[in-house]
Amino acid sequence: MLGVLGGMGPMATVDFMAKVVRNTPASCDQDHIRMVVCSAADIPDRTAAILGEGPDPLPALRETLLRLEAAGATRIAIPCNTAHHWHAALQAETPLPILHIVDAVVDQLTGPKDARIGVLATSGTVAARIYQDRLGRRGYACGLPDAAGQDEVTRAIRLVKAGHLSEATEILRREAEALVAAGMQAVVMACTEIPVALATVEGPLRASLIDATEALARACVAACRPEVALAA
Amino acid sequence: MLGVLGGMGPMATVDFMAKVVRNTPASCDQDHIRMVVCSAADIPDRTAAILGEGPDPLPALRETLLRLEAAGATRIAIPCNTAHHWHAALQAETPLPILHIVDAVVDQLTGPKDARIGVLATSGTVAARIYQDRLGRRGYACGLPDAAGQDEVTRAIRLVKAGHLSEATEILRREAEALVAAGMQAVVMACTEIPVALATVEGPLRASLIDATEALARACVAACRPEVALAA
Repeated sequence: MLGVLGGMGPMATVDFMAKVVRNTPASCDQDHIRMVVCSAADIPDRTAAILGEGPDPLPALRETLLRLEAAGATRIAIPCNTAHHWHAALQAETPLPILHIVDAVVDQLTGPKDARIGVLATSGTVAARIYQDRLGRRGYACGLPDAAGQDEVTRAIRLVKAGHLSEATEILRREAEALVAAGMQAVVMACTEIPVALATVEGPLRASLIDATEALARACVAACRPEVALAA
Repeated sequence: MLGVLGGMGPMATVDFMAKVVRNTPASCDQDHIRMVVCSAADIPDRTAAILGEGPDPLPALRETLLRLEAAGATRIAIPCNTAHHWHAALQAETPLPILHIVDAVVDQLTGPKDARIGVLATSGTVAARIYQDRLGRRGYACGLPDAAGQDEVTRAIRLVKAGHLSEATEILRREAEALVAAGMQAVVMACTEIPVALATVEGPLRASLIDATEALARACVAACRPEVALAA
């Protein structure tokens, strides 16, 4: 049973679950993957902690992991990119395998190994080098917005969390287009709030966008239903 | 912490969670309700069991309830109308309060007490008299499609579960319009798959539709955040 350490934010967890369901071949309820999901909305802000401006979320992450274990989860996914700063610390606490969202993204990349990949993420994800280091180990260079652009991305993510989607969509579209114009082969929507805001974007930009939430959902389906991965 | 006994079907559970999040006044993650959700997609078909054509889902429902208790839930919601046939049996097993979806629907009704309320539901929900009896106790009469119409509703619900939304939308729109034409003051979408299919319906029909999933979501927010209910 897939355990989802969620609530960061709550709507991003809902978006992730929808993507798990949609990526599962099924003709009736019973074909679907069993999931237990903790939407632990009260986990302290991950970016604030990384930037030294807020409390450590690790105790709350650990407590939520234990709730998932108690409910019978057999593997874990965390639909929050920034929370992956604590991936190794959490993995050290549990025998259950915890999928890594950056590995799931890299498994979706199809271009040449030395391509530059743009990343739209929280300031916490950027400061903790979650994508830079793991993309680098897999042979990809990582491109980021400049400081002013990063501030805009941060503002847009807050707008999504507060439910103001349309303003967020415009900001994020602009920042994604800037990364493509700077030569990135693809742009990862590397905060789970971002695909919620960019769901309605069409046109040439759409083909450049990689949805980290969707990549993690597919990796979960493949892990829980190996026959699906073989057939794909 | 709200416990959601879900997976019936999996996308209906996702739809319910989205409605809980959207009905919660929030400006950041930490304003949201904590939830633990079991999407137990392998629970045997509820309608088949009620009609004597399939295995009893009660053992699987009970096991899922225990998982939610183990994870720390303090009250329970079941986003599946048909599963409410086992509401009393499940309530007898747990000290945690289990909200009832029909009570949540009745709390949304605004018309005169003797109004006739149409109900679109599974054959199991109809055969088990889940709406007829509970609406009746609250002073409302219940109207249902005729036998051929009920077969069409059943077919549409199966189409949603298999991911064929557009055909399901047309069938359900027709059946809802027939109930309005027969004099129903409102039509309850009393299977959690139905609002997923009718989400795109606009025009005069929209005002007559009552979404049982949304009603249950609002009842959960009110139960978990009483200050919200007071402010509404």
